[in-house]
Amino acid sequence: MTGKADTRLRRLPEQGSKDFNLACAIIDDARICHVGFVLDGQPYVVPMAHARDGDELLLHGSVASRLAKNLAAGLPCCVTITHLDGLVLARSAFHSSMNYRSVMVFGSAAPVTDPDKKVRGLDVLTEHLLPGRLAELRASTRKELNATTLLSLPIERFSVKTRKGPPDDPKNETQVPIWAGVIPLSLRAGKPEAAPDMPAGIARPRYLKSM
Amino acid sequence: MTGKADTRLRRLPEQGSKDFNLACAIIDDARICHVGFVLDGQPYVVPMAHARDGDELLLHGSVASRLAKNLAAGLPCCVTITHLDGLVLARSAFHSSMNYRSVMVFGSAAPVTDPDKKVRGLDVLTEHLLPGRLAELRASTRKELNATTLLSLPIERFSVKTRKGPPDDPKNETQVPIWAGVIPLSLRAGKPEAAPDMPAGIARPRYLKSM
Repeated sequence: MTGKADTRLRRLPEQGSKDFNLACAIIDDARICHVGFVLDGQPYVVPMAHARDGDELLLHGSVASRLAKNLAAGLPCCVTITHLDGLVLARSAFHSSMNYRSVMVFGSAAPVTDPDKKVRGLDVLTEHLLPGRLAELRASTRKELNATTLLSLPIERFSVKTRKGPPDDPKNETQVPIWAGVIPLSLRAGKPEAAPDMPAGIARPRYLKSM
Repeated sequence: MTGKADTRLRRLPEQGSKDFNLACAIIDDARICHVGFVLDGQPYVVPMAHARDGDELLLHGSVASRLAKNLAAGLPCCVTITHLDGLVLARSAFHSSMNYRSVMVFGSAAPVTDPDKKVRGLDVLTEHLLPGRLAELRASTRKELNATTLLSLPIERFSVKTRKGPPDDPKNETQVPIWAGVIPLSLRAGKPEAAPDMPAGIARPRYLKSM
């Protein structure tokens, strides 16, 4: 990349993109998404757990009921995933901003009904939420599978927007004596809290070792 | 609170609520929201910066254009704010869950056009994003104010959903030899990164001292 391209990136830090790999990276880095759909003219935006299986976005709602039923019926939806990566402190409020990575996926979600695909999709979800954990869990029962709605949305129509880097003040303001820069933000894990009803003597599993 | 109420909370950890103070606490604890609206039958969900001024939710988009114009025209919208507070690891995938706090606010956003109110709203936003910073910034120019869209949505029609606490496995599964519990998650600030074009000798301001 040339210095010129670098400058351009800094001057236009807010960019739209159709980069599939970038979209996937943003999706993979998140554990929840916001799903928008419309019922009787009223928009709803609901948080759901998600994972990615190749070019499919898998959705799993803890509040299945109305949401999942309507989405599964093929309503148009927009699934947005956003990482707030930092506060961008410019020399003025007007030029202050945020660093973020965001992807919107448009389409209609379809329920995953094939039993093998559904088991696989839920496994992908479990493994996405905490890599390494799937291996120690029992298989879901048929009753549990039937009580679970898993939706699939193709990652075909999407739009990525990101901003990164330092503030972009006009040149005549960079010399004012005000601190400017970025406060990075990230979602971090705290110390795992064992369930109070866990029997004594269960070691902390390897997949939690780094926490 | 009695022990009985505690149990009930644990058995029904996922609760809907119309508690205004809880809604405000969730709003105040976040820096971005997801705004859903519909154009030509297609739902959109867009991240925006927000702040709260009493019983009003203020919205400020970095990508103003189409979004702000359409929202300002009075389109019905749904603004959702979600904190992912933890991964809830049960003994099975089916009972695993997430701890979260989420609020949906429904209504139609109106542009804040009164100059004094707009200045005040933007100040509230600046102060919300980083308490203490407003005092050192110059006032916005008239041109900047005109180039900024600030929207206001009353916090009247809203719904709060939260889940907290340990996993809720069926009693006959709590004794299996699998680690169960919660991995807390939170958005945390990293070390502030000074802008590369900042003049030498500018001290780190007090509002960044704790970072």
